[in-house]
Amino acid sequence: MTRQPEGGFLLLSAVNYMDMLFAYPRLLAFTIDIFKKIGCSDTDAHTASVALLSADLRGIDSHGVARLIGYVRLRDAGRANPKPRISIIHETPSTAVVDGDSGLGLVVAPFAMQVAIEKAALAGTGWVSVQNSNHFGIAGYHALQAVKRDMIGIAMTNASALVAPTFSLERLLGTNPICVAVPAGEEPPFVADLATTTAANGKLEILQRKNEEAPLGWIQDSQGRPSTNPHELKTGGALLPLGGDRDHGSHKGYALGAIVDIFSAVLSGANYGPWVPPFPAYVPMPTGMPGKGIGHFFGAMRIDAFRPAADFKHHMDNWIRRFRSATPVPGNQSVLIPGDPEREMEAERLAHGIPLLPAVVNDLKGLAEKLGVAFPDPA
Amino acid sequence: MTRQPEGGFLLLSAVNYMDMLFAYPRLLAFTIDIFKKIGCSDTDAHTASVALLSADLRGIDSHGVARLIGYVRLRDAGRANPKPRISIIHETPSTAVVDGDSGLGLVVAPFAMQVAIEKAALAGTGWVSVQNSNHFGIAGYHALQAVKRDMIGIAMTNASALVAPTFSLERLLGTNPICVAVPAGEEPPFVADLATTTAANGKLEILQRKNEEAPLGWIQDSQGRPSTNPHELKTGGALLPLGGDRDHGSHKGYALGAIVDIFSAVLSGANYGPWVPPFPAYVPMPTGMPGKGIGHFFGAMRIDAFRPAADFKHHMDNWIRRFRSATPVPGNQSVLIPGDPEREMEAERLAHGIPLLPAVVNDLKGLAEKLGVAFPDPA
Repeated sequence: MTRQPEGGFLLLSAVNYMDMLFAYPRLLAFTIDIFKKIGCSDTDAHTASVALLSADLRGIDSHGVARLIGYVRLRDAGRANPKPRISIIHETPSTAVVDGDSGLGLVVAPFAMQVAIEKAALAGTGWVSVQNSNHFGIAGYHALQAVKRDMIGIAMTNASALVAPTFSLERLLGTNPICVAVPAGEEPPFVADLATTTAANGKLEILQRKNEEAPLGWIQDSQGRPSTNPHELKTGGALLPLGGDRDHGSHKGYALGAIVDIFSAVLSGANYGPWVPPFPAYVPMPTGMPGKGIGHFFGAMRIDAFRPAADFKHHMDNWIRRFRSATPVPGNQSVLIPGDPEREMEAERLAHGIPLLPAVVNDLKGLAEKLGVAFPDPA
Repeated sequence: MTRQPEGGFLLLSAVNYMDMLFAYPRLLAFTIDIFKKIGCSDTDAHTASVALLSADLRGIDSHGVARLIGYVRLRDAGRANPKPRISIIHETPSTAVVDGDSGLGLVVAPFAMQVAIEKAALAGTGWVSVQNSNHFGIAGYHALQAVKRDMIGIAMTNASALVAPTFSLERLLGTNPICVAVPAGEEPPFVADLATTTAANGKLEILQRKNEEAPLGWIQDSQGRPSTNPHELKTGGALLPLGGDRDHGSHKGYALGAIVDIFSAVLSGANYGPWVPPFPAYVPMPTGMPGKGIGHFFGAMRIDAFRPAADFKHHMDNWIRRFRSATPVPGNQSVLIPGDPEREMEAERLAHGIPLLPAVVNDLKGLAEKLGVAFPDPA
C-alpha cells in the first residue's frame, strides 16, 4: 500500500505495510500530554503540539511527531526552556524583535507570527525577527496563520550547518527553509514551502532507510567531490545549495540560504552560519557562538494594504487556474500549484489517520513509558 | 584579452579583442541625450540612464546600454510613455501601490523604491508593488538604493514568459529576478541578485554568440525534452526554473518565480504569468491581458527597526568574513560573497571603461544618427 501522491512536489513518505495508522486527535492528545510532562503550560503544550503535528498531517514526516523525542532531549539537556518568558525587545510600527527565552520554537514561532499579524493589521505589514529560539517545525504552518486573516504569510528559519556554499568544503548554512503562503478566493491558498537546498535532509533520511542512492547534485563528500551516498553527511560531507553545482546555479541557492540566515539571525541577534545550535541534544554546541539560540523571521502583508481583497483573490484564482491548466510535457502529470500535495495529504490523513513507522512508534512508546503517559492505540 | 573574474557568480561577458572601451561619463552623457530625444524630461533621462548603465558597470551586459535601442522601440511602438504621470494609487503606513502610467521601468522603479525607503523611515519597513510599468534594468541597482540609507533593499520584477514551470510544456513565467541587498560595516554590502531560473537569458545569448552548447538543465525543447541547444527558445523551447528538473528541485525555482510574479503583479494589478508584455517591440502583445503593463515589487527594511545599526553591521562583517575565509574545495577558488564579482567589475569599468561589442556599437551609432545625437569616441 502506497499513498504517495504520484509525482508530488515533496517526497512525501510512502506508507508501507509495516506502518500503523493513528487518528490525529489521539496523537494530538498524546503529544500535548508529553509537552505538559516536560513542564510546558497547558496552553503552550497545545500550541506546540498543533504546530508539530501539522508536519505529519501535511506529509513532512521528518519534522513531525517523529521529532518529539528530540524536543524532550533538548529540554533534558537544558537547551530548551519549557517555561519561557517570550518578549518583544525592540519594535517599530511594522517591525519587532522577539526574544524566545530559549523556549521551544514550536511555542516561540506562533507568538512571533501573531506579532507580525497584529503589526500588519495596523501598519499594513508586520516583520518579526526572532532570537533565542529552537527549531519551529515546518515553516508552512506558521506562514498559513496569516492566510486566515487575508494576509500573505512569510516564515523562514535558520538551522544548524549541513550545507556547503558554492566552492566551500565547509558546512556553513542550514537547509534554511522559506515559506510564502498566499490566500486565494475560490481556490485553495498558494503555499510554497522550500528548503534552500537541492534536497531537504528528510529526503536523504528516506533514501538511507530504503538503501537507495541520491541523484548527483544533492551532496558532496568530505573532499568536496560530488557523491550519491546518502550517508555522506555522517563522514564530513555536505548538502548542496539549490542548483547543485555552479553551472546549475548553486550560487543562487547559496544566496537564498544566506538571506534566510541574515534575516533570521543577524537582524535578531541569534546565532548564524556555522554557529547555529544543533537539533540533536547529543551533538556538542558550537564554540564561540556570536548570538542567542537559533533565529527565525516572519512576515505578514495585509492584502488590502495593496488592493481590495476581492480583486486580489479574483486574480489569484485566475493565476492558479491558468497554471494548473497548462499543457503538460507529454508523459508528465499536470502542473501543480505549490501547496497542492500537502493539502491533499492533510485531507487524507485527517480522514484516515497518520501513518507512523514501527521505529517511530517504538520511540514514542518508550517516551510514554518513561514519562508515565498513556500511548494511544492505533485507529 | 579576457577580464572575466575567474569563476565569478555571474557569467560576466568576457572582453574580447574586438570590443571598444567607452568611458562611463561619455556613455552616460550619450544615453541621457537619447532619452531626452525620445521625450523624457532632463531629470527622467538622467534617472533612466544611471539605472540602465549600472548594468554595464556591474558586468550584466545583456541588461545595459545594449538594450537602449529596445527602449526606444518600445516608445516608438507606443508601449512606453516618455512623460509618465507616476502616482501612488493606494497606501498604508508601510505599503503603497504605484501606477507607472506606462513609463519606462528605469524611471518608475526608482520612484517606487524611493517610496519604499520613505515608508521605512517612518514605519520601520516599506513595501511597494507597481503596476503599469516596463522593464526596469537590473534589480540590484534598485535594491542598493536602500543600502545607502542603512536599510536592507529588496527588488523584484516579473517579465514576459520564457520559463516552463515543472511539468509544463508552456512558458508561463519570466526569468523573474530577486535582489536582496544588505549593508555591512567595514565590509562591502551583501548583494544577491538572481534570476529564478537555472541560467539567465543573457547567458544563453552569450552561448549563442560563441556557438557553444548549454549544460543540460538550462532549457527544454518544444516537446519538453532536455536540450543543450541555446537557440531552443526561438522554436518553442523554454528556460527551466532554478533546479533544472524535478529531481534537482525545479519545483522550488518555479515556486520562487511564482512568488515574484504574485508580489509584482497580482498584488499591484499588473499583468502576470503568460500575459506579461514582451520587451521586444516587434513581438505582439498577449491577448486577454488581465492587468496593466508589467509589475515590480520593492521593499526597504530599516536595520535599526530591528537592532542598533552598529550591532548589526558588526555581525554582518563577522558573517561575511567567516564565509569568505571558508576552506574551499581542493582546486576551487575561495568562497565568494554575493555581490563580490559585480563590485569588482564596477571598480574596473569605472577606471578603464565599459567594453562594447562591435554589433552593439553599430546599433548605437545607427540610433545616434537617426535621432541626431553625437556618438562618443571610445576612450
